[in-house]
Amino acid sequence: MKSFDPAVFLEDGCGKDMHQFIAELYPICRSITGEGIRETFRSIQRHIPLSIFDVPSGTQVFDWTVPREWNIRDAYVANQQGVRIIDFKQSNLHVVSYSVHVRARMSLRELKEHLFTIPDHPDWIPYRTSYYKESWGFCLTHRQYEDLRDEEYDVVIDSSLTDGHLSYAEYYMPGETSDEVLISCHACHPSLCNDNLSGIAVATYLAKLLQAQSRRYSYRFLFLPVTIGAITWLALNMQNVAKIKHGFVMTGVGDEGAFTYKRTRRGNAEIDAVFAHVLQHFGNSYELTDFIPYGYDERQFGSPGFNLPVGCFMRRANGRYPEYHTSADNLHFVKPASLARSLEVVHSVIGVLESNRRYLNATPYCEPQLGKRGLYRTIGGTVTGLSAEMALLWVLNLSDGTHTLLQVAERAGLPFSTIKLAADALAAQGLLRPAETSPGT
Amino acid sequence: MKSFDPAVFLEDGCGKDMHQFIAELYPICRSITGEGIRETFRSIQRHIPLSIFDVPSGTQVFDWTVPREWNIRDAYVANQQGVRIIDFKQSNLHVVSYSVHVRARMSLRELKEHLFTIPDHPDWIPYRTSYYKESWGFCLTHRQYEDLRDEEYDVVIDSSLTDGHLSYAEYYMPGETSDEVLISCHACHPSLCNDNLSGIAVATYLAKLLQAQSRRYSYRFLFLPVTIGAITWLALNMQNVAKIKHGFVMTGVGDEGAFTYKRTRRGNAEIDAVFAHVLQHFGNSYELTDFIPYGYDERQFGSPGFNLPVGCFMRRANGRYPEYHTSADNLHFVKPASLARSLEVVHSVIGVLESNRRYLNATPYCEPQLGKRGLYRTIGGTVTGLSAEMALLWVLNLSDGTHTLLQVAERAGLPFSTIKLAADALAAQGLLRPAETSPGT
Amino acid sequence: MKSFDPAVFLEDGCGKDMHQFIAELYPICRSITGEGIRETFRSIQRHIPLSIFDVPSGTQVFDWTVPREWNIRDAYVANQQGVRIIDFKQSNLHVVSYSVHVRARMSLRELKEHLFTIPDHPDWIPYRTSYYKESWGFCLTHRQYEDLRDEEYDVVIDSSLTDGHLSYAEYYMPGETSDEVLISCHACHPSLCNDNLSGIAVATYLAKLLQAQSRRYSYRFLFLPVTIGAITWLALNMQNVAKIKHGFVMTGVGDEGAFTYKRTRRGNAEIDAVFAHVLQHFGNSYELTDFIPYGYDERQFGSPGFNLPVGCFMRRANGRYPEYHTSADNLHFVKPASLARSLEVVHSVIGVLESNRRYLNATPYCEPQLGKRGLYRTIGGTVTGLSAEMALLWVLNLSDGTHTLLQVAERAGLPFSTIKLAADALAAQGLLRPAETSPGT
Repeated sequence: MKSFDPAVFLEDGCGKDMHQFIAELYPICRSITGEGIRETFRSIQRHIPLSIFDVPSGTQVFDWTVPREWNIRDAYVANQQGVRIIDFKQSNLHVVSYSVHVRARMSLRELKEHLFTIPDHPDWIPYRTSYYKESWGFCLTHRQYEDLRDEEYDVVIDSSLTDGHLSYAEYYMPGETSDEVLISCHACHPSLCNDNLSGIAVATYLAKLLQAQSRRYSYRFLFLPVTIGAITWLALNMQNVAKIKHGFVMTGVGDEGAFTYKRTRRGNAEIDAVFAHVLQHFGNSYELTDFIPYGYDERQFGSPGFNLPVGCFMRRANGRYPEYHTSADNLHFVKPASLARSLEVVHSVIGVLESNRRYLNATPYCEPQLGKRGLYRTIGGTVTGLSAEMALLWVLNLSDGTHTLLQVAERAGLPFSTIKLAADALAAQGLLRPAETSPGT
Repeated sequence: MKSFDPAVFLEDGCGKDMHQFIAELYPICRSITGEGIRETFRSIQRHIPLSIFDVPSGTQVFDWTVPREWNIRDAYVANQQGVRIIDFKQSNLHVVSYSVHVRARMSLRELKEHLFTIPDHPDWIPYRTSYYKESWGFCLTHRQYEDLRDEEYDVVIDSSLTDGHLSYAEYYMPGETSDEVLISCHACHPSLCNDNLSGIAVATYLAKLLQAQSRRYSYRFLFLPVTIGAITWLALNMQNVAKIKHGFVMTGVGDEGAFTYKRTRRGNAEIDAVFAHVLQHFGNSYELTDFIPYGYDERQFGSPGFNLPVGCFMRRANGRYPEYHTSADNLHFVKPASLARSLEVVHSVIGVLESNRRYLNATPYCEPQLGKRGLYRTIGGTVTGLSAEMALLWVLNLSDGTHTLLQVAERAGLPFSTIKLAADALAAQGLLRPAETSPGT
Repeated sequence: MKSFDPAVFLEDGCGKDMHQFIAELYPICRSITGEGIRETFRSIQRHIPLSIFDVPSGTQVFDWTVPREWNIRDAYVANQQGVRIIDFKQSNLHVVSYSVHVRARMSLRELKEHLFTIPDHPDWIPYRTSYYKESWGFCLTHRQYEDLRDEEYDVVIDSSLTDGHLSYAEYYMPGETSDEVLISCHACHPSLCNDNLSGIAVATYLAKLLQAQSRRYSYRFLFLPVTIGAITWLALNMQNVAKIKHGFVMTGVGDEGAFTYKRTRRGNAEIDAVFAHVLQHFGNSYELTDFIPYGYDERQFGSPGFNLPVGCFMRRANGRYPEYHTSADNLHFVKPASLARSLEVVHSVIGVLESNRRYLNATPYCEPQLGKRGLYRTIGGTVTGLSAEMALLWVLNLSDGTHTLLQVAERAGLPFSTIKLAADALAAQGLLRPAETSPGT
């Protein structure tokens, strides 16, 4: 496992490291099953101690069945001169994921029924799948499509669809309590950088950061094939989901768009308030959107039987940018600086969750005399002036056991970090004590 | 009773039929008691099986007493030449309702104390009543008034005010449950079309439509003299009002103005949400207003001892149009198309009430696999595309027993009909089952 | 005690009387302890029967200790010619409050470390204190400061800081119930008119008005040294604070700025709703602000252990005007008309509190017949027309035991006084009866 120093990492351009990690993962042909996703997990294992779980094809998971495993070695369409004019070796997006084995000669007319392009973006290859209906197809640029001559073509897809396994990966990092924070990324898309490699990279590096610090919560990082992977994980872990106190799905965090946080189904979970607060004070533009039962795996975590407090953190949301699910979602589309800023956001979110306690004012009748304790207009040498004084007064005033520090920060209109410093300073003077020992709302 | 085919009726210009019905009722001289209102009920009986109730004068109903019955045969003011210059036979609005018997000769000065006009609309006759104070008077156009010469006049009001009955009419239509929807119209105004004949017509035709369909709820249609009629009905039916789960007063639905729905006293009743939803998706301009204890009989249904969930459906509200309570509220003022659209609204409202159930997702853990059931992007052949898919996902996600279909529709931002189709399709596949058997909140 | 006729007082220019009272108090050198504040209390005693309490230095009050008593006889800085160039006799603001005894000769450089000015307002003397840190200083205009020559100065502060007492004053006025309304003013600032003499004057005259009327509530007026006075009072009266049902701190009510009402910590107390209603209907511009734990003694009343429903009534808030805490807060800065209008507001607030009851409609089923009781369109000869009729209907409709008259007024969009007249008229007719006998929420 690679050595890692969080302080150096945060000072350095962590964005470059994450971008480099994405570049390593980019060429792999991933799908919801098969060798590609397992190879991806092995790459992540070089950073964090991931456990890989293999679930046999045919396993019943709620209303679904784990599908057969798909693997592919080669695929192409060759013209009469034997020239490969569509070639899987050049881009794994050229083959519709889960295409069945094909070896045939056919006319252009027959072939065209299996071809997919994006006429509006004639240089981009679309990304297509056919997981649950046996079928085959090629994706190509619209320029390639228009150049096809009316002749016979050799069509080869050297793939297999056989009983095997669905694989997912999990990294559980224990903390002081067994209450969990869940962070879930899908890992089944082939050569697409923002959706999904950016989520994988930022989650991996977040895990590295958290390893190096003390933790009130336990953390569970999931890397899953989308939909069926989340369903499988939930089916196999039903007895443990009550431990999940907060969570978020993360993907699409490498582009240069504004941040998007999509609230949990509950809409008023602590994680919703934390993301709203962190994004408000972060300085970048952002959007908060309500839960809808469409998108990524928050759909499954938020199904009515579970109703888990799991939101979704993205930059531009799925389908809201033209590069989405095309070959243009490549290594140029994701930026080191964007990845670094996204990591900062989620690291700040975890920071708030870890510190978001309720306190009791130890001198609840009238204000304590801050002046004689040297607390006025200076807290720990860091925040000074009026904000610091107001933070002290707000923490004292609202520490009645019903307000979390985040609620104090929101009512005071101050950043959580300022309120936290005030609470620490007051606690050090014995003016404040924790109202409870276990986290969670 | 007239034969009636709902399908033909809705395809045909139902507006013309309702306008024709109004034209039949227009000449009758109605008041809160007397032959006029009973003749009106007999006309309605040709469409629906109405029960007529007669309550004797002097009956105590809460804080009120049923008044003596008023009937009128003729009334006029004649000049010295014997010419009837104000003549009840030309318009029943000419006589102040409940005017006592008069046969006298008097000067213009004396007469003028009993004359009422609208100077701002010199060609219109006002509508005036004096139910609870013995008095008499004539209403006339301001032009007529200005033409009066200073001479002696013969004044005749051939009316009687004697012990008799207050009459009201009721049509109870049983449904699967005894929970009731109340629809109430006042029927005591003389030759005024919008206020009140339009309400009578639309209610009558709504009843005809509901007769022809299966009903979860029972329906109670009331045709009442305003205020005293509602008070009398409530006094005589106190033991049954708890059955009323939803209701609305309806009047003034024939003019060309925007729709107005006035919320129940509760403000958050299911009927309030249903009208808001239907009007939002109907396409016409509309206004939702809060309850105030002034207006029509929602005042009585919403008195604090009852606090029934009864709103009020109108086009322009009482007093908000100059023709209100004048001779200009005539057969030209109400339009067939307006009547037809109003009927569509209330029929849609009933449709939502009838179908507004809570469901339980039969596969609440993760999403069911819609694709294998052929449910994706097509529901019953009617709604297709993204809305249909989103409707399926929203119904599944929110069918946790706490959300009605209307609440699902509101959260999804989709019309109730789309959500209903999705629920039906899911229920047909066994993916959804009703959360309860009885209606009501 | 001065004789007083409320009717004459309200008709007359009460503003002039209050301004005259402020002028009497203006020259006194007040501080949080000492003879000045006691002399102030004795002046107030000429208007209302105030009790003065003396608490010994060294008494522990929650986290604080009652300080030693400070008194001052003279103070000056004299130049080499013996001329007093800064002279306490000219303005008591020239000496930093709680300055220790000094008798020394020093260079200009040494002296300057103890001098305070306002460069932006070179003709104003700032107001400075050093209650809890032994120190001394002079305040002067920036022009005086710039005229100082580089020579030796004689510096004299003839003050004493010795064991003595902290004094506060209280006027308790019993009412029908022991439930209390608390009105608190700080009284420790020296020659500053708006902050704090205006509050003292308006509170004193409010007490005179309330003496002359019947009272449902008992009233407690407090005149306190700021912060330590409120803390001391709360420490000595802990067992009685539960009687405080409503309250407000009052200061800064004599300038010409818009009104400010700062809500209680609870934010939804009855006193908050009453101030909001009165200010909305008063006709002057005003601002409602949320509680923050900074400002005047509402900080102590609103500490989490007490959380009393005590707001703060001001015109421009502390620190929001340049004259604040300077010699420019003088007798010209406070205006008779402003004082009079402020008194009107708080008198109206008390009026609403006194009358804000819940009623029960005695005829809750349908409306009572107002016409036969002569109630239509006239109430008590005062309010007539549509507002009066609507007020009757609203009071009847919402008198279900859950709405206070203020809540009826807010929902009806009518002034409390109109609703109150309607309630009185209905009660006189037996149509309404009180829902409870004791006040409070």
